[in-house]
Amino acid sequence: MDPKVNVYSSFESEMRVRPDDLDVNAHVHYTRYLDYVLAARYDQMERCYLMPMSEFTKRGFGWVVRTAHAEFKRPLGMGEYFIVRTAIEEMRKDGVRVTFSIRRKDNNKVCCEGFIEYTMIDAVSGRSTSIPPDIVEKYSI
Amino acid sequence: MDPKVNVYSSFESEMRVRPDDLDVNAHVHYTRYLDYVLAARYDQMERCYLMPMSEFTKRGFGWVVRTAHAEFKRPLGMGEYFIVRTAIEEMRKDGVRVTFSIRRKDNNKVCCEGFIEYTMIDAVSGRSTSIPPDIVEKYSI
Amino acid sequence: MDPKVNVYSSFESEMRVRPDDLDVNAHVHYTRYLDYVLAARYDQMERCYLMPMSEFTKRGFGWVVRTAHAEFKRPLGMGEYFIVRTAIEEMRKDGVRVTFSIRRKDNNKVCCEGFIEYTMIDAVSGRSTSIPPDIVEKYSI
Amino acid sequence: MDPKVNVYSSFESEMRVRPDDLDVNAHVHYTRYLDYVLAARYDQMERCYLMPMSEFTKRGFGWVVRTAHAEFKRPLGMGEYFIVRTAIEEMRKDGVRVTFSIRRKDNNKVCCEGFIEYTMIDAVSGRSTSIPPDIVEKYSI
Repeated sequence: MDPKVNVYSSFESEMRVRPDDLDVNAHVHYTRYLDYVLAARYDQMERCYLMPMSEFTKRGFGWVVRTAHAEFKRPLGMGEYFIVRTAIEEMRKDGVRVTFSIRRKDNNKVCCEGFIEYTMIDAVSGRSTSIPPDIVEKYSI
Repeated sequence: MDPKVNVYSSFESEMRVRPDDLDVNAHVHYTRYLDYVLAARYDQMERCYLMPMSEFTKRGFGWVVRTAHAEFKRPLGMGEYFIVRTAIEEMRKDGVRVTFSIRRKDNNKVCCEGFIEYTMIDAVSGRSTSIPPDIVEKYSI
Repeated sequence: MDPKVNVYSSFESEMRVRPDDLDVNAHVHYTRYLDYVLAARYDQMERCYLMPMSEFTKRGFGWVVRTAHAEFKRPLGMGEYFIVRTAIEEMRKDGVRVTFSIRRKDNNKVCCEGFIEYTMIDAVSGRSTSIPPDIVEKYSI
Repeated sequence: MDPKVNVYSSFESEMRVRPDDLDVNAHVHYTRYLDYVLAARYDQMERCYLMPMSEFTKRGFGWVVRTAHAEFKRPLGMGEYFIVRTAIEEMRKDGVRVTFSIRRKDNNKVCCEGFIEYTMIDAVSGRSTSIPPDIVEKYSI
């Protein structure tokens, strides 16, 4: 296979800030942005890649986060709507690197961006495992 | 004013379970249902009572929870959509008692129900205060 | 067995407020008090009843919350130390009613109190099940 | 001032996993490790740098997270004790870069490590501001 650069689609999920996401500064607590990314990935696995997390589980697979990196640009506040865009940047033998951005829906300004590296594991052993070809294909859109 | 029984409207907010809401049993963690109720109230203050929380804050008021009571009937799971219905059951001089139910969207079955008593406070002193007549009116729909 | 009233011991766990527990008012978010109660029960199952949660799991049992009731008296703030006291108030065939109080460590004032009703379930079926005699005994201290 | 490399002390805080920190895999949810780091910094500001967060607030300052980077090595599980070690790696005009590690207390193995870049802000304007000399000094231990 020829080396390819960023041939993957990006997908978007719309969500809304919940009151329990806010910290003492009335902004979304910094770790919640990463919860939003996780929620977007679950949504997009089901809706965009057509393989919900439950199917991974049924086949004995799991995903674990190996690395998370987030840069905080602007805060989100109470009740705001936002868009989480994610895209696979690189697929490794046993994992994927996903880039993300979180933007306010009303003005499209970036609030947070970064990447997350996921490793596929065998749910029984807990060890990393190769991504099966059919899943590589599903993820190669 | 004559005594009246439950003359208040009920309102609904639709939400979705986030992955970070789940506990080790793959069900929504029990305290998160109360976070959903809070989110529904914020949504409904803005959309149904036409007085968002920010307006309370601007006028120097706050709401604090005095009592929370929840009965757990059925669990919500990953990614499920649900409806939070709330209604004012009783308005006191300095607070309201709000009943709630959380139902799965797909089958309308009750997952959690209960009530929350909120007290209005003066944001500066932190003490309970009478609900001003215009807010009583807004809440009397 | 003769009816007995409150023959059960109460136990205490000391904890500390984490920054991520705070809400926009710089007080502990109202649902986190119930997280503290859960943490205290896990601590006390292991340390006081000498049967950690992992042993329940190993034997195929689980605990689910049927009812939670909390009254909020005074807020806890950033970094404060507090004591969670819990006691079994009543043991049913398939569950226990546990009362709790959360007090600030420095002045012993009550911040939150209430009760939680737990039902024992069979982990496979998810249905309620009788508490085995040896566990009734362990809990009867 | 001569350029200096890593002249700063590292400090440790001991904490314990709470049940509400766990995800569906019975491991600490990935974003909670960053909550532990924040809790450790608050603890160490007060106990080690002798300048609690409340003093920053009183002087009109705040800290915001600009970048968070975490690498996940081993999971923490229910009730485990762990040590969060943090150290200032670099002090900029308006911020600090703090490295951290989270280790299981019983075997000292690294569960998570990374860094966080904090920017000091003026609490009124919300903009970044120079760290005053006396705070630079307090942080230079």
